[in-house]
Amino acid sequence: MPSQPSKELETFDNPQPERDYTIRIRIPEFTCLCPKTGQPDFAELHLEYVPDHLCVELKALKMYVWSFRDEGAFHEAVTNRILDDLVTATQPRFMRLTADFNVRGGIYTQVVAEYRDPDWQAPACVDLP
Amino acid sequence: MPSQPSKELETFDNPQPERDYTIRIRIPEFTCLCPKTGQPDFAELHLEYVPDHLCVELKALKMYVWSFRDEGAFHEAVTNRILDDLVTATQPRFMRLTADFNVRGGIYTQVVAEYRDPDWQAPACVDLP
Amino acid sequence: MPSQPSKELETFDNPQPERDYTIRIRIPEFTCLCPKTGQPDFAELHLEYVPDHLCVELKALKMYVWSFRDEGAFHEAVTNRILDDLVTATQPRFMRLTADFNVRGGIYTQVVAEYRDPDWQAPACVDLP
Amino acid sequence: MPSQPSKELETFDNPQPERDYTIRIRIPEFTCLCPKTGQPDFAELHLEYVPDHLCVELKALKMYVWSFRDEGAFHEAVTNRILDDLVTATQPRFMRLTADFNVRGGIYTQVVAEYRDPDWQAPACVDLP
Amino acid sequence: MPSQPSKELETFDNPQPERDYTIRIRIPEFTCLCPKTGQPDFAELHLEYVPDHLCVELKALKMYVWSFRDEGAFHEAVTNRILDDLVTATQPRFMRLTADFNVRGGIYTQVVAEYRDPDWQAPACVDLP
Amino acid sequence: MPSQPSKELETFDNPQPERDYTIRIRIPEFTCLCPKTGQPDFAELHLEYVPDHLCVELKALKMYVWSFRDEGAFHEAVTNRILDDLVTATQPRFMRLTADFNVRGGIYTQVVAEYRDPDWQAPACVDLP
Amino acid sequence: MPSQPSKELETFDNPQPERDYTIRIRIPEFTCLCPKTGQPDFAELHLEYVPDHLCVELKALKMYVWSFRDEGAFHEAVTNRILDDLVTATQPRFMRLTADFNVRGGIYTQVVAEYRDPDWQAPACVDLP
Amino acid sequence: MPSQPSKELETFDNPQPERDYTIRIRIPEFTCLCPKTGQPDFAELHLEYVPDHLCVELKALKMYVWSFRDEGAFHEAVTNRILDDLVTATQPRFMRLTADFNVRGGIYTQVVAEYRDPDWQAPACVDLP
Amino acid sequence: MPSQPSKELETFDNPQPERDYTIRIRIPEFTCLCPKTGQPDFAELHLEYVPDHLCVELKALKMYVWSFRDEGAFHEAVTNRILDDLVTATQPRFMRLTADFNVRGGIYTQVVAEYRDPDWQAPACVDLP
Amino acid sequence: MPSQPSKELETFDNPQPERDYTIRIRIPEFTCLCPKTGQPDFAELHLEYVPDHLCVELKALKMYVWSFRDEGAFHEAVTNRILDDLVTATQPRFMRLTADFNVRGGIYTQVVAEYRDPDWQAPACVDLP
Ligand SMILES: [Ca+2]
Ligand SMILES: [Ca+2]
Ligand SMILES: [Ca+2]
Ligand SMILES: [Ca+2]
Ligand SMILES: [Ca+2]
Ligand SMILES: [Ca+2]
Ligand SMILES: [Ca+2]
Ligand SMILES: [Ca+2]
Ligand SMILES: [Ca+2]
Ligand SMILES: [Ca+2]
Ligand SMILES: [Ca+2]
Ligand SMILES: [Ca+2]
Ligand SMILES: [Ca+2]
Ligand SMILES: [Ca+2]
Ligand SMILES: [Ca+2]
Ligand SMILES: [Ca+2]
Repeated sequence: MPSQPSKELETFDNPQPERDYTIRIRIPEFTCLCPKTGQPDFAELHLEYVPDHLCVELKALKMYVWSFRDEGAFHEAVTNRILDDLVTATQPRFMRLTADFNVRGGIYTQVVAEYRDPDWQAPACVDLP
Repeated sequence: MPSQPSKELETFDNPQPERDYTIRIRIPEFTCLCPKTGQPDFAELHLEYVPDHLCVELKALKMYVWSFRDEGAFHEAVTNRILDDLVTATQPRFMRLTADFNVRGGIYTQVVAEYRDPDWQAPACVDLP
Repeated sequence: MPSQPSKELETFDNPQPERDYTIRIRIPEFTCLCPKTGQPDFAELHLEYVPDHLCVELKALKMYVWSFRDEGAFHEAVTNRILDDLVTATQPRFMRLTADFNVRGGIYTQVVAEYRDPDWQAPACVDLP
Repeated sequence: MPSQPSKELETFDNPQPERDYTIRIRIPEFTCLCPKTGQPDFAELHLEYVPDHLCVELKALKMYVWSFRDEGAFHEAVTNRILDDLVTATQPRFMRLTADFNVRGGIYTQVVAEYRDPDWQAPACVDLP
Repeated sequence: MPSQPSKELETFDNPQPERDYTIRIRIPEFTCLCPKTGQPDFAELHLEYVPDHLCVELKALKMYVWSFRDEGAFHEAVTNRILDDLVTATQPRFMRLTADFNVRGGIYTQVVAEYRDPDWQAPACVDLP
Repeated sequence: MPSQPSKELETFDNPQPERDYTIRIRIPEFTCLCPKTGQPDFAELHLEYVPDHLCVELKALKMYVWSFRDEGAFHEAVTNRILDDLVTATQPRFMRLTADFNVRGGIYTQVVAEYRDPDWQAPACVDLP
Repeated sequence: MPSQPSKELETFDNPQPERDYTIRIRIPEFTCLCPKTGQPDFAELHLEYVPDHLCVELKALKMYVWSFRDEGAFHEAVTNRILDDLVTATQPRFMRLTADFNVRGGIYTQVVAEYRDPDWQAPACVDLP
Repeated sequence: MPSQPSKELETFDNPQPERDYTIRIRIPEFTCLCPKTGQPDFAELHLEYVPDHLCVELKALKMYVWSFRDEGAFHEAVTNRILDDLVTATQPRFMRLTADFNVRGGIYTQVVAEYRDPDWQAPACVDLP
Repeated sequence: MPSQPSKELETFDNPQPERDYTIRIRIPEFTCLCPKTGQPDFAELHLEYVPDHLCVELKALKMYVWSFRDEGAFHEAVTNRILDDLVTATQPRFMRLTADFNVRGGIYTQVVAEYRDPDWQAPACVDLP
Repeated sequence: MPSQPSKELETFDNPQPERDYTIRIRIPEFTCLCPKTGQPDFAELHLEYVPDHLCVELKALKMYVWSFRDEGAFHEAVTNRILDDLVTATQPRFMRLTADFNVRGGIYTQVVAEYRDPDWQAPACVDLP
């Protein structure tokens, strides 16, 4: 059966839940439609998160990103919405989503939104010289 | 009706006011006139802000930037003035404007100004390894 | 007297007319108006030429480029027109003008036009290893 | 009326038909569907041509590129097809289309196709030192 | 059935055999074994060709590249061998293979080999200014 | 005797154990197999650590990295496993492993995991202007 | 009257003294003489400061930089001296000068010096994600 | 008398001892011998320090670096040793040495070591926006 | 005796006069004075030549470049003049001088001049794939 | 027995002598001594050749490059000498050696020398669009 766009985000068990570690995912091929003009918009998504018990499955994530192809979406709203969906699916300790939209009208826009589990304390980052 | 340069900055409702998040806007096509010589000056503007209840509308922002095309403006003053106009229009939690001016007399100048809502506390930035 | 935009291109005598040599001039600050929308357009101009008896004077060239600031101009036409003006002013052995326009509607456009003096023979370029 | 995807390519009269000159157009936002998997494919298109009597209109070109969004297309075939459509619409002296497709299966593919008007002779390119 | 490494190179019909055009394929993930030490070697392959009646199928090409993972191979010999296999499979008008091997002993090696169909005449490349 | 892949990590005595200092090791040639498809995966590993009494021996580290060539391994699990092996072998004060995997399905993944000796206090990094 | 090298640094009133903001100035064309050999030295200067009541005037700054052209100056001493002159002239809240000297004897040197007004408290920099 | 390799590090008086400031020195031409194989090793050294009463003299530093040309030296040990020699010679408030060694066996190594005068307190770095 | 600026260009015997080969010399530190304003101008010089019986001595070349420090010089004239001086001194088979001047008035200028010995025939450059 | 510097260049049989193909070798770690000052010089060597019956063996090439470590050598002479040694050892159809020397006295030098077998005809390079 061929793959299909889908809003369902699958997960798998975090293989190392006793350790805070970072997963970064870069998705250069996001596209949706501008709600005002109906014309295509394009963006590159950057996701970084500290998993708790679940990690997001990459193939399902690809189908999820595909599912916006025919939907109208404002830059600010869709970035927050994708973050919310990913948080709901994976219940991470921390998650940050950055969306870099292509230039429109000579202006470049980026939106960055975060989720922090209120029970989680970010460890101070060791900055080696 | 064709679009016109305008000092009016339009806004729209922040779709996620309960969350601190970042909007970055890069505007490579700012030009005004040098008050001393009358000759054109050019700059690239970088805006980054945490919206409160309002976001700045991009098409109006473009017309606003256009409105400086025939005005004389010193580097330091115009950067602070644009920041003030944007703060007045959007009442953000935080806003930073960087203006990178083209070389003049072999010297490159950049001006960076910020506004912080006194009621807003910047959350400590999570720095993942 | 302050400088003014001007279509007059001044020249000076080529100090070495007995030798074919190349002068390259890069002008990052060209701006005119889109004839359809009235909105500003921006481009970077690259000029390269082999002078005959005259070279173009740089300060006058700057005023000439400035003179397009309030004029409507299509990409293809204005590139050919600037080349023609420069050829008329300097009567070069060879001249090439490249105009790199900023993105519009997600599309980037460049126009390149040349003039060759029919009496001039381009010497074979020595390509050293 | 909002703009629509369309296979119709509009043209305008070449403002300088007596001169061979180059127009380059870069289109980073091409997307179609893979005929085997149905999944989205992405490419950046580079067009360069020497116009004869007609130039391609940029807004119509954008709608034309949009029209492939829901069509299945193989890399080699779609590159040749887009070139053919542009040649039919503009009857250029010379045209070259390069399509840089995003990585698939760890492999990057580029296709480059050209049209040369049999009546047109490419002038030897002057290579200045 | 899961995919397997294989020396079989599949092809498909060139959709535009009446036109000389270029297909470029970049394969960053080539690895084989050093015949002297038995240790892994790594290279990035660049293939460019003008197809005649057949194009190489990308998925089979990936399996073919995989098939060298457990084989010992000298840099010069394996580059020529891969070119020969690709020529045998696709019978192209022209084909060039470049293999960029990773540094060994502080020395970087690249090998470039070509095939030209004796019946094919390379058209003079149009070099637009 | 030719070298062999091996999971044994050899160490040597830290020549300066009384000082906290940083060792960074970049390994561009990691490859393993995808447990789902059996196909090769590729990554670049970045290791940075503060040694205590032992440093990792580079030639043995190379054989250790080689030992994953024929093993199936998920991105998240293998990064944590390699970190654990290196921590077991060297008992460092601090260690961070970053694995940058090649693109799969149009998506790029990076995993970063750390170990901190509970008895060790990271000195505040002096950030000179 | 033609401009002259001069140690006099002119200033103008800060247009926004009630706000801490940053002015950055890059000067690629600094040259002085080596006191040991008498030969020319070259450097690129980077100045960044938070003005209090006065800003440095750019044209006078250019003449000031020019005034070192015929003076002997050691790297460390001249960087501290220029900083002192600029502090004396503008009485800033904060000022940092970086001097990047060209390679000499195969060695590259950079000197960075700062002044902080003891009455001024640097606001914690807001680091947006 | 021609210059000679030498382990003697000369110094000169810090011209501004009452101010904490930074001196950075980049030395791309370090070479020594591998103690295991006897073959040459190469590295780029980066030194940054806050001088107290003495600065290191550059010409003597060059001779000092030269003195390792015929000596066997392990990466970790030689980095710490050079730092120690420089600290002994200049008695700085703070000093950091980074050694970037060339690739060996497909692996890149960097070592970073620091000295902090126990009586010196690093001032909080002002991070201007 | 300390070195001095000097217009004398010293040479040494070409060690391989029976072979055409290329010497390239890059000089980033050229400075002279603008004849109109008296202010300093800066350029990077690139020299490439095929020696006949003489090569230019590098230390003398440095003193020669230094000798323009206090002289007024127009871009086009000084480039041709330096080429002439170098040709007179070395009588090369071929010589090309490129001068890249720093931006002035927002405009960047480059001048390229060549000398060809009329008795010398440039060999066709072998362009390996 | 540990490896030693040596002027002996070993070869192996070209595995594909019936085809003209290119081998490129980059050697970043060449060092010799300046005959005037006795101080170390550094260069990066680039070798490209079309083998006839013999290819140069890489490990012996490394020992050969090492053999210059304690020898005095002028830039122009040593580049021609290394080319001659490599030609003598491998009798290639074509060979080009480029030596990029590190900056000395603020000046960068590159030397490029070639050998062409008089019986060999360079095939016209196919330049695909
Ligand atoms: Ca760090
Ligand atoms: Ca981060
Ligand atoms: Ca970090
Ligand atoms: Ca060349
Ligand atoms: Ca050219
Ligand atoms: Ca050229
Ligand atoms: Ca071209
Ligand atoms: Ca740091
Ligand atoms: Ca720092
Ligand atoms: Ca920031
Ligand atoms: Ca940040
Ligand atoms: Ca800073
Ligand atoms: Ca900062
Ligand atoms: Ca070549
Ligand atoms: Ca090519
Ligand atoms: Ca080409």
